[in-house]
Amino acid sequence: MTYKIELSSDEVPKQWYNMLADLPVPLPAPKNSEGKDQIAALQLAFTKAGLEQEFATDRYITIPKEVRELYMEMGRPSPLVRANKLEEYLNTPAKIYFKREDSSPTGSHKLNSAIPQAYFAKKEGVERLTTETGAGQWGTALSLACNLLGIDCTVYMVKVSFNQKPDRKNIMHIYDSDIYASPSENTKVGRQVLAENPDHPGSLGVAISEAMEEALENEEVKYSLGSVLNHVMLHQTVIGQELKTQLEIAEEEPDVMIACAGGGSNLAGSLFPFIKDKIEGNSDTQFIAVEPSACPTLTEGTYDYDFGDSNGFTPMLKMFTLGHDFVAPSVHAGGLRYHGMSPIVSLLTKEGYIEPRSVHQKDCFEAGITFARNQGIVPAPETTHAIKATIDEALKCKETGEEKTIVMNFSGHGMLDLKGYASYFEGTMQNAK
Amino acid sequence: MTYKIELSSDEVPKQWYNMLADLPVPLPAPKNSEGKDQIAALQLAFTKAGLEQEFATDRYITIPKEVRELYMEMGRPSPLVRANKLEEYLNTPAKIYFKREDSSPTGSHKLNSAIPQAYFAKKEGVERLTTETGAGQWGTALSLACNLLGIDCTVYMVKVSFNQKPDRKNIMHIYDSDIYASPSENTKVGRQVLAENPDHPGSLGVAISEAMEEALENEEVKYSLGSVLNHVMLHQTVIGQELKTQLEIAEEEPDVMIACAGGGSNLAGSLFPFIKDKIEGNSDTQFIAVEPSACPTLTEGTYDYDFGDSNGFTPMLKMFTLGHDFVAPSVHAGGLRYHGMSPIVSLLTKEGYIEPRSVHQKDCFEAGITFARNQGIVPAPETTHAIKATIDEALKCKETGEEKTIVMNFSGHGMLDLKGYASYFEGTMQNAK
Repeated sequence: MTYKIELSSDEVPKQWYNMLADLPVPLPAPKNSEGKDQIAALQLAFTKAGLEQEFATDRYITIPKEVRELYMEMGRPSPLVRANKLEEYLNTPAKIYFKREDSSPTGSHKLNSAIPQAYFAKKEGVERLTTETGAGQWGTALSLACNLLGIDCTVYMVKVSFNQKPDRKNIMHIYDSDIYASPSENTKVGRQVLAENPDHPGSLGVAISEAMEEALENEEVKYSLGSVLNHVMLHQTVIGQELKTQLEIAEEEPDVMIACAGGGSNLAGSLFPFIKDKIEGNSDTQFIAVEPSACPTLTEGTYDYDFGDSNGFTPMLKMFTLGHDFVAPSVHAGGLRYHGMSPIVSLLTKEGYIEPRSVHQKDCFEAGITFARNQGIVPAPETTHAIKATIDEALKCKETGEEKTIVMNFSGHGMLDLKGYASYFEGTMQNAK
Repeated sequence: MTYKIELSSDEVPKQWYNMLADLPVPLPAPKNSEGKDQIAALQLAFTKAGLEQEFATDRYITIPKEVRELYMEMGRPSPLVRANKLEEYLNTPAKIYFKREDSSPTGSHKLNSAIPQAYFAKKEGVERLTTETGAGQWGTALSLACNLLGIDCTVYMVKVSFNQKPDRKNIMHIYDSDIYASPSENTKVGRQVLAENPDHPGSLGVAISEAMEEALENEEVKYSLGSVLNHVMLHQTVIGQELKTQLEIAEEEPDVMIACAGGGSNLAGSLFPFIKDKIEGNSDTQFIAVEPSACPTLTEGTYDYDFGDSNGFTPMLKMFTLGHDFVAPSVHAGGLRYHGMSPIVSLLTKEGYIEPRSVHQKDCFEAGITFARNQGIVPAPETTHAIKATIDEALKCKETGEEKTIVMNFSGHGMLDLKGYASYFEGTMQNAK
């Protein structure tokens, strides 16, 4: 019987896998909107290494020794676990595996990109990184990474989340970063928004603008983003590469692979090395991206050029989008409320390699509870989306009798999101759509 | 360079180690107080298997196959990690290792005893287990274990904690148990207390009485305790046995071993298999039990017969105690506020095998923050006590130049205790004593 498959520290991948090298069609380049030069702004705001990786075409990019060591210090490789109890409960012939990215000290996959981003910043003499955070997972990871690398970190957290989730602020304080409720008095953008409406609840768009403004106006400050961009997807591929080794040990070929998708980073990280095989004709694995029905970017959005933020501060990216002024209902899966999607994930969805699916919030929490009751671990609201699809696929197998191997990326735990579960039990949870 | 030492699932121990077989002097038996028969009550309240194990003298007791499988399903063995970054930060020649009991789905070592207790109850036809919980770690673990075994679970949570820690209630709901703020209207004891004082804040003593009353008055209900008793210590020895294997792989002989101590269960679990060697004259490892200065049971208590609860409901146990009416100040380490101590841990302390030490709350949180900033993982308030002593020992090595190997049991994570850290940063934290 298989319970978990652990790799030793020295099996942390030595290279990141760059999906840009193997795309079936070229990725449309970012472009400026009429009369503006957002690309120049981007070049000022990001580290040189981040920008280089953003457009790199090498298939494999060496992970710097120091980054790889920090991956190991922080517990990588993460375990792959067979969900025996869940299979038993569902009475399915399917085999279910999940990759435990929740085992990171910050509780999600986000540290995989936070560490290299902080490392490259430090190497380039950057004194401080700024970023925004919605649900808080990315802000938490970047806070720890900056602290490990010895640079400062400033996080702009959407004010409504800042007030609703004091524990996110607490954990970022433990990691010694500065956290501000956005809109704040720190920046021109923030002050302007507050002047118009002192009670503004904040938005990811405003928070991005505040964090970027600091980077644009201070030479020693750079801006850091936790999803969507190509170099973030690149960093996350340590997940999928470990997963390949672990599935080989388990002697399994995945029939279905599942991840939730907000900006796309945990999906990219876990699935890209496998999608490569499919593009090359060496696999017929089915890849499923799961998003909330409240923010159906891939299932109902359009594939077009749009801004990455709500203010039109970033260049235009070719991606699935609900429009940069789309405001998703306030579902608990704050990490899946983004209006756009990683351009690479968007392209692979457009080309038919990734199958998008949207699910309702209450069904996701129900699936999350089923998972916790059988496998013990309480999933993050975002992760419950992947679980819902996994359970659905396993139940299909029960009907058809197929013994499929289903592999899910368990992107994070829900220890700081238990209020969402409380609202489920209290019956106050809405499906939002 | 060593980062972590993982064992495979089939290296989960096949037996529990029973310290009772190797004590340097016999353990004084529990006794009744004058005119009462608490031992008879105990026999009614607990499962047969629990009582048998409580007095068993075999050195090793086979772990039932089903229990061992559930240990594996829930992720055991737990990793042993080298704290390289902390060593580097402290600039110490000491080597620091920590055993990650926080990697359990419920976030602490408590599941190690919750699973067998639920298993034996199920096997004996028990329909429901009752228990009390203070900080919430034990109630959480027993809730999950009962759910895994298919029996009901009722948790009496001290009212003041119940109101302060809604997330503990939420997670126990996820695991499908019934949680009541104690004093409750469910029991005679609870109703009586409420009649006298409707605003009674609750106490562990009252909660124990409520949980035991249910077991004494309903044949199909048994009572379960998460620390102090011999059979709980027994179950926890999976930790220390795994640790032995892991230290052999690392080619390390521990010079100092450290655990925090409330009722004694994580200390017993991690240290007993090593204390055996010392009693047999095969080791000169130093064993340190760390407790809060606010509840200095081992350092300032007396070694005498006392009740396990504040109401005199349990038999009298020979142990270090601050008196059964002692009420510890409200420190954040709720799991270390118990007036007594495991009789076995008490005896081994009395006999000089375990060296007790008390530490102040603020120093512990400071140590916890240092740990989190270097190793990533945020420790539970209880665990910060072990960390404080570990850092102190490592700094002593820096002074003397000794290259000691220090091994600490990392009993749990602090994801549900972040408010304690907030009060540290806000400067509102007291040392309590």
